[in-house]
Amino acid sequence: MSHQSGRVAAESEMRWNGWGDPAKADDLPRAVRALLPLLLGRIRKPAAPVELHDVQLDATALRANDGAAFAEIVGPGRVDMSDEARIRHAGGRSTPDLLRRRQLHQSVPDAVILPGDHDEVAAVLAVAADRGVAVIPYGGGTSVVGALDPERGDHHAVVSLDLRRLTGLLRLDAVSGEAVLAAGTTGPDAEALLTAHGYELGHYPQSFRYATIGGFAAARSSGQNSAGHGRFETMVTGIRVATPTGDIDLGRSPGSAAGPDLIRVFLGSEGIFGVITEVRVRVHPIPHERVLESWTFPDFAAGTAGLRAVAQHVGGPTVIRLSDEAETAVSLAQVGRIGRALSKGAAVVTVYEGDGIAERRARTSALLAAAGGVSSGEGAAEDWLDGRFDGPYLRDALLDAGVFCETLETATTWANLHALKAGVTAALRDGFADAGAKSHVMCHVSHIYPTGASLYFTVLAGVRSDPLKVWAEVKARVNDAIIASGGTISHHHAVGRDHAPWLEQEIGETGVRILAAIKRELDPQGILNPGAVITVDRTR
Amino acid sequence: MSHQSGRVAAESEMRWNGWGDPAKADDLPRAVRALLPLLLGRIRKPAAPVELHDVQLDATALRANDGAAFAEIVGPGRVDMSDEARIRHAGGRSTPDLLRRRQLHQSVPDAVILPGDHDEVAAVLAVAADRGVAVIPYGGGTSVVGALDPERGDHHAVVSLDLRRLTGLLRLDAVSGEAVLAAGTTGPDAEALLTAHGYELGHYPQSFRYATIGGFAAARSSGQNSAGHGRFETMVTGIRVATPTGDIDLGRSPGSAAGPDLIRVFLGSEGIFGVITEVRVRVHPIPHERVLESWTFPDFAAGTAGLRAVAQHVGGPTVIRLSDEAETAVSLAQVGRIGRALSKGAAVVTVYEGDGIAERRARTSALLAAAGGVSSGEGAAEDWLDGRFDGPYLRDALLDAGVFCETLETATTWANLHALKAGVTAALRDGFADAGAKSHVMCHVSHIYPTGASLYFTVLAGVRSDPLKVWAEVKARVNDAIIASGGTISHHHAVGRDHAPWLEQEIGETGVRILAAIKRELDPQGILNPGAVITVDRTR
Repeated sequence: MSHQSGRVAAESEMRWNGWGDPAKADDLPRAVRALLPLLLGRIRKPAAPVELHDVQLDATALRANDGAAFAEIVGPGRVDMSDEARIRHAGGRSTPDLLRRRQLHQSVPDAVILPGDHDEVAAVLAVAADRGVAVIPYGGGTSVVGALDPERGDHHAVVSLDLRRLTGLLRLDAVSGEAVLAAGTTGPDAEALLTAHGYELGHYPQSFRYATIGGFAAARSSGQNSAGHGRFETMVTGIRVATPTGDIDLGRSPGSAAGPDLIRVFLGSEGIFGVITEVRVRVHPIPHERVLESWTFPDFAAGTAGLRAVAQHVGGPTVIRLSDEAETAVSLAQVGRIGRALSKGAAVVTVYEGDGIAERRARTSALLAAAGGVSSGEGAAEDWLDGRFDGPYLRDALLDAGVFCETLETATTWANLHALKAGVTAALRDGFADAGAKSHVMCHVSHIYPTGASLYFTVLAGVRSDPLKVWAEVKARVNDAIIASGGTISHHHAVGRDHAPWLEQEIGETGVRILAAIKRELDPQGILNPGAVITVDRTR
Repeated sequence: MSHQSGRVAAESEMRWNGWGDPAKADDLPRAVRALLPLLLGRIRKPAAPVELHDVQLDATALRANDGAAFAEIVGPGRVDMSDEARIRHAGGRSTPDLLRRRQLHQSVPDAVILPGDHDEVAAVLAVAADRGVAVIPYGGGTSVVGALDPERGDHHAVVSLDLRRLTGLLRLDAVSGEAVLAAGTTGPDAEALLTAHGYELGHYPQSFRYATIGGFAAARSSGQNSAGHGRFETMVTGIRVATPTGDIDLGRSPGSAAGPDLIRVFLGSEGIFGVITEVRVRVHPIPHERVLESWTFPDFAAGTAGLRAVAQHVGGPTVIRLSDEAETAVSLAQVGRIGRALSKGAAVVTVYEGDGIAERRARTSALLAAAGGVSSGEGAAEDWLDGRFDGPYLRDALLDAGVFCETLETATTWANLHALKAGVTAALRDGFADAGAKSHVMCHVSHIYPTGASLYFTVLAGVRSDPLKVWAEVKARVNDAIIASGGTISHHHAVGRDHAPWLEQEIGETGVRILAAIKRELDPQGILNPGAVITVDRTR
């Protein structure tokens, strides 16, 4: 069966200086407004953010004949050097990105190029390598680790390569349960295209509404259903990549031992080796039943013991997440209900979809109860499900109110989980305290593995001035603490430029040499996403 | 918890010119003897194989000061240049290997080096790189793809680096369910060490009794319990590797997005990038219950439909395998009972271990019955379990009787499974027919995935003369057929030297360039396993 479609309606374009649909942006709920001074002391409302038409940017550094050469490939209307297009591609959606979007002068790419298919991507890369133009691959624009910063490295200009025209379900093999999706297809578009045939991919990260299939692959994304369906990399069965020195098609067969699995070289490569243009994924029939159940544990430690038991037995829930006491207390897991205290202790949400729900739920419930959990009905789980993609809207409202808000994540083994949580929490609290800011640190576990789990932190802080500088210092301290406490520098946000200086401590000097060697082979001019994953000096 | 042990008894040393324990080698069962002429026509018994002390080999090319430099690292008794040691490390256990072991003149490594720990391995590699000596890493000696051929590439000598002294359970983290095993630990030793603490790794390839943990990792092994516990690569959570240019320790955390997963660069690298010295694996409590059930399907097509349904639903059997009509007819799946016809149709063996056996079995049975399967009790599954590691003994007896016998494997999507099976079967039959030999081709599926499955072929042929030459031609034809029919060049036997010329057709020119770039970075002199995975000319 073969299916082509680019006709599925896209989500509304994202706010240029915030998250998501402009129509959904909202003021801070009254309950939050009441809670914040209790947590953070007096908050000072900042100056109003700059308007799009007031942003100042440098004139494009792209030479006229560069632009003409790109236009020859993609068509004249698809090399966009307008101020708005350049500003809209200036970065991702980390809190530092959003703070930079509030500044008058902004660093932006010199043009936005919109190729229409794999061959156009390959041709753009060849021309860019030839002309010494850096290229930042751009999917949904949802990076929170600086992967989209318009860094030009040693080159005279930098362009954003926006993949939004590479969209659609290219092939569906219903017998094998495999679908090939164009890399620029967004999460909602992919699910809509598959739903028409009775299938689901089932990958729901918080960025789902805007992020793309290619971005999920490039960043080693992990979604809310990871307990049931695994990380995105476990869903990928094939990949097509354009590099400046040649194409590559990988994933000839499931279960191969034909040398190292080179798909894994590109999953997590964040655009430094090539541009992913197609991804083959395993899909499954749409589940027709969903069961929700919330649990309350006396504390986070008891909750993690419960989650560990579930992770180390087969066939548990599709979604499972555990909020620590601080997150449970302010119900920040339930964005829509923020401020309505749920209960004391540590809250767990479970969702079951697919085959054998009754047995899986019975087995899971027995394990959670044995660890001290008490079932608390559907309510909190329903709230979580309703608001699960809305966290970033709240952050915009907090920033507008002058509250610093950011998230970060890591992972480690079960044995090391509490030491890592303590290390990161201390680095956040002490870091903000040293900057004279009160902070509130919350944490949850949202991805479990047989051998360990992720930790996802949300921090609110009453930063009085220069939040970009304060956060740079705190974030460095957190990254040092993650490394010192045995965690990974990223569980699913990826490396980008923000984590790149810490990567060598994770994979060693030999590891960085391996990445640099692949980079030099595939991209000898170093045009692709300079400074992401490995710093520019390591790739020369 | 920390545990050190090298005291677990090793298996008896393998026959120098055949499989396994010399005491277990046996004549061909009478039933097989009766069956063979019916399948293959008249068989001519070959000349008796050469005795070990009659083998002729070249004098060692290792210079005296090379040997002294290695001895300074590992100790004087551990650079073994005896004829017997060199002959015992001359290759693996493919049928061509065994046929070469029957020849008078044999190509062998110039010495066998026995390092005692990671640092000695690293020091040996540094000296070898410095002196221009090629190094073939040697674990259990069970390669069937030429990965142990004593090829020296551009170097003046070649040594076999035998890892048998790197043995033991180095660490056990019972909370996280992780164990660190020294790379030279054999399958049985690893399980014995873990059993003492109540844990199991659960990786049981046919080579289990001799193959090593490092070999499982280097070759992307897959075991009989793969339906329940996954391929070996899914069990690996960390790895330590010595390369000629530096060490690397990988696997800081489960569920990382810190750049590409570099563990996967070494899984499947077959010793061309470095020597794996330690492997961290996920382990699970020893299952206390085991349930066996055999099934009969009207034919292979119905059986694959049943297996596909099981693979595409969660929580099925620990082991599942399906023999085609040809294999079912001669019961070759049940080595101990060869010649006792089981039944018409296609036989399926299922084994359940671990949690929730009753539900998993009920769900699996319903799916198999819906596909036309009929349960046939425990008998055939018990026979399979009893004889599951004994296939290679039978091959030795067949070779002694003058019957060519070899196995090979591939994998593809469910949609393409029958086309691939037909392509490989035709290549085998036609290839032997063109050489004037009758053949009998059998096939089974023993590893299932949501998107596809493996195909494992056993071929018997009445080759009258020069079986090495005949097989080289037939095997080339099979490899061409695998590529033409969309299969992978290896599902779990790996690439070695035998499949290396076909790898580029699987991963493309860009893929080979990636491997060569990593190779040049880590092993710039090209001393490590020259010609394995990628041909020597691609690594210069």
